[in-house]
Amino acid sequence: MKACIVVTPGGPEAFSLADVEIEPPGGLDAVMRITAAGVNRADVLQRQGRYPAPPGAPSWPGLEAAGTLLEAPASSPWRAGDRVCALLPGGGYAERAVVDASLLLPVPDGLSDVEAASLVEAACTVVSNLDEARALPGETLLVHGGSGGVGTAAIQIAKARGMRVIATAGGAERAARCAALGADVALDHRADDWVAAVRDLGGADVILDVVGAAYLDANLRALRTGGRLVVIGMQKGARGELDLGLLLARRARVIGTTLRARPLAERAAIVARVREEVWPLVPDAVRPVVHATLPLERAGDAHRLLESGEVFGKVVLTV
Amino acid sequence: MKACIVVTPGGPEAFSLADVEIEPPGGLDAVMRITAAGVNRADVLQRQGRYPAPPGAPSWPGLEAAGTLLEAPASSPWRAGDRVCALLPGGGYAERAVVDASLLLPVPDGLSDVEAASLVEAACTVVSNLDEARALPGETLLVHGGSGGVGTAAIQIAKARGMRVIATAGGAERAARCAALGADVALDHRADDWVAAVRDLGGADVILDVVGAAYLDANLRALRTGGRLVVIGMQKGARGELDLGLLLARRARVIGTTLRARPLAERAAIVARVREEVWPLVPDAVRPVVHATLPLERAGDAHRLLESGEVFGKVVLTV
Repeated sequence: MKACIVVTPGGPEAFSLADVEIEPPGGLDAVMRITAAGVNRADVLQRQGRYPAPPGAPSWPGLEAAGTLLEAPASSPWRAGDRVCALLPGGGYAERAVVDASLLLPVPDGLSDVEAASLVEAACTVVSNLDEARALPGETLLVHGGSGGVGTAAIQIAKARGMRVIATAGGAERAARCAALGADVALDHRADDWVAAVRDLGGADVILDVVGAAYLDANLRALRTGGRLVVIGMQKGARGELDLGLLLARRARVIGTTLRARPLAERAAIVARVREEVWPLVPDAVRPVVHATLPLERAGDAHRLLESGEVFGKVVLTV
Repeated sequence: MKACIVVTPGGPEAFSLADVEIEPPGGLDAVMRITAAGVNRADVLQRQGRYPAPPGAPSWPGLEAAGTLLEAPASSPWRAGDRVCALLPGGGYAERAVVDASLLLPVPDGLSDVEAASLVEAACTVVSNLDEARALPGETLLVHGGSGGVGTAAIQIAKARGMRVIATAGGAERAARCAALGADVALDHRADDWVAAVRDLGGADVILDVVGAAYLDANLRALRTGGRLVVIGMQKGARGELDLGLLLARRARVIGTTLRARPLAERAAIVARVREEVWPLVPDAVRPVVHATLPLERAGDAHRLLESGEVFGKVVLTV
């Protein structure tokens, strides 16, 4: 089968379409024919050689995909022909994927495969991190990167949870689109002093952050007493100064998480939580935001687009 | 009544015994005659002017005391004449204290007032932080400052919880005393590479740290996947570099806490947890460690002793 592989790590030109062998399915694995695969920031790091595939996963990128089941374990509730999407440990940039059946979700009614593929990883990231932070209805969530794949999902899912949502994005137009998605307050981080604005709003109980070091100190200052800063990305630096005096005074916590590296049972539990909490909200309260689709063989262009910083929502590859 | 007050913040010589007025008790307050008052690191900061008394608390230091009730609210289970100890928001360095009845504990059977006064704040700190970190039986706890008041209590309480305990202390003799208190492994941080030693032991699930910035990076390296670093003191610095890459890779969290600044209801809940979890363990499994007692008027000498770094356990003032 074909997959979009990286032979030598590097820029977007590193991709090439190749014939690859796929591992035969184990007893609990399903085999899916892929029609759409979401593109994530982590794929960029993997392409650059900075985020190697975990043991046992295909070497080509792709953390989420949608399509049709070709085979399903008899012990599972799934059957060949089911329309599914999946949280993958890698390998979505391909015609087929072998995946543990516990990582499958149905394609929600009313969604295309492209939309479903765009939502899996973001929904899993949002739900697992809101759970990790024990985010409660009535609390205030600050979402950085509100215009990204995780950000657009976080705004909608947190609103459905009954939280107040403040989002930051780059530029007034993108901030306005965050507000249109449901953010109670949307800030343009290029123009606004977002720390002051968040503090004027009483501070954040929970912050979902993809920026990393560059925002570490500012995030801490934006937290309320008892606040939780969840760092899920390091788009602007991995090492930052932490003001422990402020951490103690705020009785705050800084939480680092990743999704892909977790044991299978934890990822399966997250998928189950998404099916329980998010899938019933789709497509009315939670709607996938797809910025663009490109064919699989143009994975390099999809990465160029993502890295341009001009995407609102997700980029999806079609197979 | 007499209290040991600080007129001008400064060194240990700043203390003077003075006649002071005490606030009249409110409807939920008890009045206790103090016979013993524990000395804590936070008292040193308060003496230096770096940790002002919270609103409504007496201006003189003292976070824990033991003695006899002079008055108790009729609505409480307490009666005048009861032997009690208390978690105070301040004001323990005195002949009497007015305290909300929800912050009282009985003096455990078999303990002197001095021993009871030495245990309250440490037990509250340990239980609240182990709860905050969701520390579980079978997990490994790393305690820094194992020879301090909190450290000696943490070793014993965590062992009683079924945790494996690694303690660090300054010097081989102090480390040996931590082992004698129950630590499974005791390390001399002056001689041992404690990070390497902890990693050789599989890493720590929970770290209870009083050192702060100087240990921030090392603590992160000593954590296992899913580990929790709880910072409760900043004896060596308040600002340190945080490696977010490692935080994410370990799916770890850094938690800052304080006890004194919490709302009354939270402090009362912690006192109730201590009565439930720790008091039944006293004095068999959890035994107070009193290094020295000095009379109230020698509070300055008590601080000199604590600041010398040569204390094992607690220093207690007697009234």
